[in-house]
Order: sequence, then C-alpha cells, then structure tokens
Amino acid sequence: MKFKRIRKYQTVDKSMKIIKIPSEMKEYSAKIRASGKKIALVPTMGALHEGHLSLVKTAKECADICVMSIFVNPTQFGPNEDFKKYPRPIENDIALAEKENVDVLFIPENKDIYFKDASTYVNEELISQNLCGKSRPKHFKGVATVVCILLNIVNPDFAVFGEKDAQQVSVIKRMVRDLFMDSKIITAPIIREKNGLAMSSRNVYLSSVQTIDAVMLHASLLKAKDLVSKGCINVDRVIAEITNYLSKSSQLRIIYVNAVDAETSLPVSVVEADKTRIVMAVWVGTVRLIDNMVM
Amino acid sequence: MKFKRIRKYQTVDKSMKIIKIPSEMKEYSAKIRASGKKIALVPTMGALHEGHLSLVKTAKECADICVMSIFVNPTQFGPNEDFKKYPRPIENDIALAEKENVDVLFIPENKDIYFKDASTYVNEELISQNLCGKSRPKHFKGVATVVCILLNIVNPDFAVFGEKDAQQVSVIKRMVRDLFMDSKIITAPIIREKNGLAMSSRNVYLSSVQTIDAVMLHASLLKAKDLVSKGCINVDRVIAEITNYLSKSSQLRIIYVNAVDAETSLPVSVVEADKTRIVMAVWVGTVRLIDNMVM
Repeated sequence: MKFKRIRKYQTVDKSMKIIKIPSEMKEYSAKIRASGKKIALVPTMGALHEGHLSLVKTAKECADICVMSIFVNPTQFGPNEDFKKYPRPIENDIALAEKENVDVLFIPENKDIYFKDASTYVNEELISQNLCGKSRPKHFKGVATVVCILLNIVNPDFAVFGEKDAQQVSVIKRMVRDLFMDSKIITAPIIREKNGLAMSSRNVYLSSVQTIDAVMLHASLLKAKDLVSKGCINVDRVIAEITNYLSKSSQLRIIYVNAVDAETSLPVSVVEADKTRIVMAVWVGTVRLIDNMVM
Repeated sequence: MKFKRIRKYQTVDKSMKIIKIPSEMKEYSAKIRASGKKIALVPTMGALHEGHLSLVKTAKECADICVMSIFVNPTQFGPNEDFKKYPRPIENDIALAEKENVDVLFIPENKDIYFKDASTYVNEELISQNLCGKSRPKHFKGVATVVCILLNIVNPDFAVFGEKDAQQVSVIKRMVRDLFMDSKIITAPIIREKNGLAMSSRNVYLSSVQTIDAVMLHASLLKAKDLVSKGCINVDRVIAEITNYLSKSSQLRIIYVNAVDAETSLPVSVVEADKTRIVMAVWVGTVRLIDNMVM
C-alpha cells in the first residue's frame, strides 16, 4: 500500500508540473525552448469544461509542451460583474488538466501578475469598442493586458483560444500583430452541449428552466445560417430572424446581435457565407451568455 | 584605387549591418541569441549626437552585439509638434553609428512599424500623467507603444536610454516591469556641451543667442544642487531658486520645474540628496528643451 502511494505520487509529479511564480514559469519556458521544443499556452480562468479541454487537444497537436494557465483576471471584470462569485473549483481543475495530459499548469496569484502599483495597460482601441465592449467598457483592456502579460511570462510558440469568445480572439490577434509579439494565435471551435448550448463556465449559474431558453441562442444561429444558405445577404433580415426567435422567450434579454467579419469582428454591411460571423450576447435571467456562428 | 575601394566596401559590409524590415531584424536577433550572445538595443530617433554615442558605449559594455534603431516615431508627437521638421540626417547618422562600431543599424519605415489599421497601444497611466505628460498628452502613449514594439522586434537582453529623458526612462522601466518584458533597461548619464547645455537633437534649432540662454537650464540645476548640498530639503524653496534664476532671461518660458523621485519620476514632498531629481521643461523661443539633475 505504501509502495503504491509512492508510485502514484511519482506518476503525478512526472505528468503535470504546477508552477505558481512568474519568474519560475519564465525560467521553465526558457529551458524548454532552449531544448528546441515548442510550447503552446492555453490561457483560462479555470472552471474547466469540455471547451477548455478541446483547447488542450489543439495545443498538444501544435506543440511539444502544453502549458495551461488558470487566472481569474480581475481587470477584465467590471465593478458590477461577477468577479467575486466567478467559479473557482481549483482542485477539480487540477485533476481535469492532469487527466488531459497538460504538461504545466501555471496558477499565479493576483499579486504575482499585477504589481501593487501597476500602471501599464495594453489597449486595443478599435475592435474592442463594439459588441461586448459597449456593455463592458474596460473588459478588453483587461483581457489584452493580461494576455500580453501571460504571453510575456510563458513565451509560447502558440496560444490557443476558443472561438466562443470571437471578439476576444480578434482583439488578441490584433494585439499580437500590432505589437510584434512572437506567439501565433490558434483558435479552436466552440464546443456545445448535446442540446446546442455553447459550453461556458458561467453555465453553472443557469437553472434548469433557464437552460431550456439558453438553448435558443444556438437554435437562433442555426436559423440564421439556414436563411443565409438560402441566399439571404441582408444584415438586417438575418438579425431580425434571430431577434424575432429569441423574443419568444420571456427569460431572454438581448444585449446585441450583430453581423461581423469572422476574422476581425468588425461590422459588415452584407452577410457572406464563410466570411461573416453572427455574434450575440444575451441575458438569461442574471446570467450573461455569448454565442456566435460563422454563416 | 579600384582595389582600395573594394576593400573599403568589404570593411563597411562586415562592420555594420543595416536592416530595414522587422521580420529580418527578428530573424537576425534570434540567430544571435541562439549563438549565446547578448544583444543591447539603443533606440533613437536619429540626428545622433555625443549623447547617443555614449549610449552605444554603454551598450557595448553590457552586450556582445549593439543594435541601434533609428525611427522618428510619429505617435509620440502631438498634432502641433515638430514631427515633420524633426532633423533626419540619415547619411550622417549611418556614418556616425558605423564609426562608433554599432553592429546593426535597424532603420524601419513607418509603414513597417505601424500597420495601416494598427489599433493597439501601450499606455502607462500614472507616471505619464505628470511633467511632460501634461503638455504633451499622448506623448508617452506613443513612446511606450513604440518601445514595446521595438523591444518585441529586436528582443534585446538590454535596452539603453539616456537620463536626459528621465520621465521617459521611468515610464519604460514601469512598462517593462508591469508587462513582464524580458529586456533589462539600462540608463546612461546626460552628456553636455562644454557650456553645460544638455545634448539634444533639437539643439540644432537654437540660434546662437538662444544658446546663451539655454545654457541657463543647466546653471539653474547646479544652483539648486548647491542649495540642497547646504541642507535645504524644501521643494518650493529649491524650485523657486530655479524659476527665479530662469526668469532673468526674456527668451525662456518655463513649462514646468518639479522635484520627483529619481527612479520613478513621481512627485516628492521633500528634496533628498541622491534620491530626488529636479526636472524641467522650458521653451527657448520656439524650441522646447528638457533637462534634469539628481540633487
């Protein structure tokens, strides 16, 4: 029994390294890179679900070493948002990451990412203004800043983001391009529940009744896609199809539904198959959900 | 004669490499670093003088390879500032850099640093607000952004800046710390003309009459330092000593004179020897000069 426990511990020790201090993470990454191996980073805020785990799979296809970061970033939450109650099931996250063969789990504390007198921010000023940027004015400033910091600490060859946060992906790609950062941004498709609901750490807030209506987001996107496949290119018409469908639920309050360029998340004037993404944010009771689909 | 010319060309080719394209600069730096050599960057806007050349000396003391960049950065000039007429004696700069044994001269064009639709900026929000930040509101945003870009392109172990732009140094040090950038920021002391005038690319704008009064900036700092050495710690008293002296010239219009922490450039309430820097910006006719001295 004792022998067994020791073996188990050794296995754990070998299979996933946990790093908490940025300078140690930097040092570890430098060693890996010096050995000629490639690193892919999967930045997360924890509360891992199948969506995150699919990013790990993508990361492991790109690179030799998969680093996952878990950091609930305070600067991307507004003053009245859910930073404090954001789910933090860290023990479960560690077990899931390990099961998925993550090589390094980077779990810094807030004080190790933001100096007490930190005063430098990275701000993307165009893409960030639309969509979620309108209702969450400093959100993307917080996102860009923390992603810049994480990329500088981990220094990965690749960083993998989910397409559910399509605007976030566009902002980060723009930042990496504009600031000549070295990491290549890779995206992975939205992972959905069987009922179509896009996986999100915030889904745990949904009651079972709310979940029934939350499923309508995906259904409305499918209706829009169907319309586009039949030849509709009119932005207003496609958006109306969605808002009309969603308005059937008293649980849902639309924050926005927009047609944007699938790559840049900037507004478009006509809907084009494969090039236009319909993006939406909707309140389901007190839960703010986002979803999107390329038409 | 022909033989001599060929020899000269070969020497030039070996002694200083000129790179214009960011991707080529990145590639070159990666090779140098892979070979185990250290790189020091001296970022400049050209119009090189002894001050810049002293930075090269410091760079060569720190590292194996000295990269100098020359880029007149449009984003750090205000709409009514001297971007267009800023001196650009590029042939002379190349000759000076070569004479000083700069290994690589990186001379990117504006379009190669800023994408046509660039929308990402780095902003230091605290230190940047005071001193030159008050009269040049977007100056340090432009500085932080371009230095971030240059550091990401050149990826140097060290970057060397002159202490004449003390606030700029504080902003850059803060940015590098906050964003976990890898380069170490090194500073080198102000280089002065024999008459005490701090060297600056903008000194060429001064008429010989204006030069006589511009010299008073340094003289006033020496007066302040003398006062502090005699035990004066009162900020207002030290500043008054300077403003009183400068007011004797009808050519000079003070923009600011302040006592700040020598490291952070943030305001202090008492003057301490070796820890407090007196910083100033003064119009000499239509030429905006800055100077400073640690007390």
